[in-house]
Amino acid sequence: MAQPALTVGLDVGGTKCLGVAVDEKGDVLAEHRIETPAGTDPLLAGLAGLVASLAGRAGPVGAVGVGAAGLVDRGGRLCVAPNLAGVIGVPLATVLSERLGLPVVVENDATCAAWAERLWGVARHVDDVVLVTLGTGIGGGLITGGRLHRGANGFAGEVGHMIVDADGPECPCGQRGCWERFASGSGLARLGREAVAAGKAPRVLAMAGGGPGSVRGEHVAAAAAEGDTDSLAILADFAGWVALGLVNLANVLDPGALVLGGGLVELGDLLLVPVRARYESMLFAWEHRRPAPILMAALGERAGALGAASLARRPPTGTG
Amino acid sequence: MAQPALTVGLDVGGTKCLGVAVDEKGDVLAEHRIETPAGTDPLLAGLAGLVASLAGRAGPVGAVGVGAAGLVDRGGRLCVAPNLAGVIGVPLATVLSERLGLPVVVENDATCAAWAERLWGVARHVDDVVLVTLGTGIGGGLITGGRLHRGANGFAGEVGHMIVDADGPECPCGQRGCWERFASGSGLARLGREAVAAGKAPRVLAMAGGGPGSVRGEHVAAAAAEGDTDSLAILADFAGWVALGLVNLANVLDPGALVLGGGLVELGDLLLVPVRARYESMLFAWEHRRPAPILMAALGERAGALGAASLARRPPTGTG
Repeated sequence: MAQPALTVGLDVGGTKCLGVAVDEKGDVLAEHRIETPAGTDPLLAGLAGLVASLAGRAGPVGAVGVGAAGLVDRGGRLCVAPNLAGVIGVPLATVLSERLGLPVVVENDATCAAWAERLWGVARHVDDVVLVTLGTGIGGGLITGGRLHRGANGFAGEVGHMIVDADGPECPCGQRGCWERFASGSGLARLGREAVAAGKAPRVLAMAGGGPGSVRGEHVAAAAAEGDTDSLAILADFAGWVALGLVNLANVLDPGALVLGGGLVELGDLLLVPVRARYESMLFAWEHRRPAPILMAALGERAGALGAASLARRPPTGTG
Repeated sequence: MAQPALTVGLDVGGTKCLGVAVDEKGDVLAEHRIETPAGTDPLLAGLAGLVASLAGRAGPVGAVGVGAAGLVDRGGRLCVAPNLAGVIGVPLATVLSERLGLPVVVENDATCAAWAERLWGVARHVDDVVLVTLGTGIGGGLITGGRLHRGANGFAGEVGHMIVDADGPECPCGQRGCWERFASGSGLARLGREAVAAGKAPRVLAMAGGGPGSVRGEHVAAAAAEGDTDSLAILADFAGWVALGLVNLANVLDPGALVLGGGLVELGDLLLVPVRARYESMLFAWEHRRPAPILMAALGERAGALGAASLARRPPTGTG
């Protein structure tokens, strides 16, 4: 079957949808974004309009890939999508394909981003890759043996729900001590609030402009960027939690690269330097291995859409 | 290249070495075991003798596979093998191949067992498999997309060193709260000793025939098998820790089957029933997935040798 000249990749997030039209080399010929419409029908209409807009500028589109924030089963159904109110349980691949008259594949957004980083980003030529997105929550995408690892249900890569502290704080998922409670933006905010509540980190409190309850991760980050020592200590603590989960993933999967994406990577070396130091001190049998380097994702906010566009070109078959 | 009619698989453990001669269908034509000789040269001589003995009974051998308890790199070097004193750092594949005049592959024993269970055991036809051996420690082997997942260094599957309690007890690996501290035979023994030290579980103490320090996992198991309620409570606690790690692995990898091997599976339903119950209550998005069933390994103590024999027939290439 001839491959389409162009595919569209759509990254469907809780606040915005980013679309790219991509050729077979991964070059982006058109890009467009919209605010994410609420509800299933408005979302479908919005995505169809996005595809039409991209096709109008870049040329005929042969297939569409969607990366969605949530659990997507292997049939392209959105099973859990906390940030996409009203579209739970929707067989997105099927209904969008019917609407567009084009083949549509739907995958988890972090899975798409992992694939993009492996094809065109920082993990080119690495056969075993773990991508972790550190945002409000934590997402993950896995490449094993050069192939996307979807898992039996399509749910592989839910790394944020590794339990790393059996007696830890409650997670909305119903468990305690999920990695996401510690190593996400929400986790950083919690560490910041705890420090402020303990009478530490006055600069963070000032940044937040309110009580301890108003402290968010970006307030800690902003104060740390100024060199505030209290905030740097909070970040060091936070980095230890990030490293712990990366160590777990490296011990289980022994990847050739660990790639960090998501909003928190904007912290840059403020985060990466202490994460790497803790990781190196914790990895099992460190001295006997070439430890997976911890790399910053290279494709930025486009990663999910790019990966989805590539997956549309090569529809997933089998388990690999 | 024509495949050899017979291959030998050797499972090299801390106390014994089990060898099998296997045809291409996986039928065992000869089986033999020796005590594990101490030191590199005696071990090599012992393994060579084992191969000769099997060949004498079953016929000419075309290749040898070795499953060894420890970290084995992708070149077949034993990097870490706490139970094989004196053979650390030995390029086992190379030196054994030179000695035998045959192709030799060496892999981690749990990795071999996972491959065997996928080929001929309880996980036949399952493309994504996680095998966990619960013994004195915890080992693991991973199949993704129908292929063995070795990892970049060959160290994939070190699931026992997932950190599940950041403030937990110290592990010989240098970290705190590794899963192996809780969910292995050593972990069960620790729970038993703690109960006895707290004045509970008199039946366990009687079984141990000494002070609290003499309590081992098998004393708890034996008392639980008698129906001792204190021991059943210890096992329930233990099962929670086993389930926690399985949940982490299922959340990360979404396998089609979780296979339990190792000495502790002899506990049977005493362990499996509470593990399954806890697992079902903890898995992320349980209601949206077909959860990986937790299965007992089918090939028993032969699994590692069988898998090694199969891997000898199809030498590993690439990452897959």
